[in-house]
Amino acid sequence: MRDRSKVLKAAGFRWQGVEVREYKADGAPCKDVTRQTLLGEGEGEADLNFIPRYFEIQPGGYSTLERHRHPHAVVVIRGRGRVALGDHTYDLAPFDCVYVAPGAVHQFAASGGEPLGFLCMVDRVRDRPELVTRDP
Amino acid sequence: MRDRSKVLKAAGFRWQGVEVREYKADGAPCKDVTRQTLLGEGEGEADLNFIPRYFEIQPGGYSTLERHRHPHAVVVIRGRGRVALGDHTYDLAPFDCVYVAPGAVHQFAASGGEPLGFLCMVDRVRDRPELVTRDP
Repeated sequence: MRDRSKVLKAAGFRWQGVEVREYKADGAPCKDVTRQTLLGEGEGEADLNFIPRYFEIQPGGYSTLERHRHPHAVVVIRGRGRVALGDHTYDLAPFDCVYVAPGAVHQFAASGGEPLGFLCMVDRVRDRPELVTRDP
Repeated sequence: MRDRSKVLKAAGFRWQGVEVREYKADGAPCKDVTRQTLLGEGEGEADLNFIPRYFEIQPGGYSTLERHRHPHAVVVIRGRGRVALGDHTYDLAPFDCVYVAPGAVHQFAASGGEPLGFLCMVDRVRDRPELVTRDP
């Protein structure tokens, strides 16, 4: 069997051969979020049952407020921000680790002068997010 | 259902409530490697089908030379080093991403004056590593 192993060199939070995609949820408010899928989509990567992605949120930006049945494992690798997680909000700094349990409403936001960047691991096969509206 | 979400604050590549374990493989050569299992072992984390771990190798240290059927997804977050991956060796620096395909023989080593630290994601259910001896 051909060895599909590889190294993706990183430079400035971009990875060799990985596309930077604007993250948009249908009809849901989110602002200045990009996604890079590091592994799992390429040829020979079907053996990965989980997908590591890198999300980056520009200062003042935020991800959608959402929930789903699949959990998230998150590790911050750049910048500062906060995460709303259920009924709590937590400050985030590099290397903080976040577990978003099944069903937990969550939203990430960047604060300060540089982007908030984090790795977010999910199951390859997973349910679609349900968008949530905050009570006014 | 109780929300099991949480944030593990990081400080100096250690995480709140996460034990630092010396990594030892039975009878296999490895040197100065520690492992921290960030998520997946705690109460309420059984929903995670994959396990994010953080490995740290001290300068001059190295992990076992091994192979297994389950793949690894690795992201370097500290220091410099190299990985032997099949027939090739690659230099590693922060945020480089490594895909270790099923069956690929691999070994990580730290170079330079500071530890090499990397996140390594694996399936919760996986085969045991097979240790490999290099031909002299």
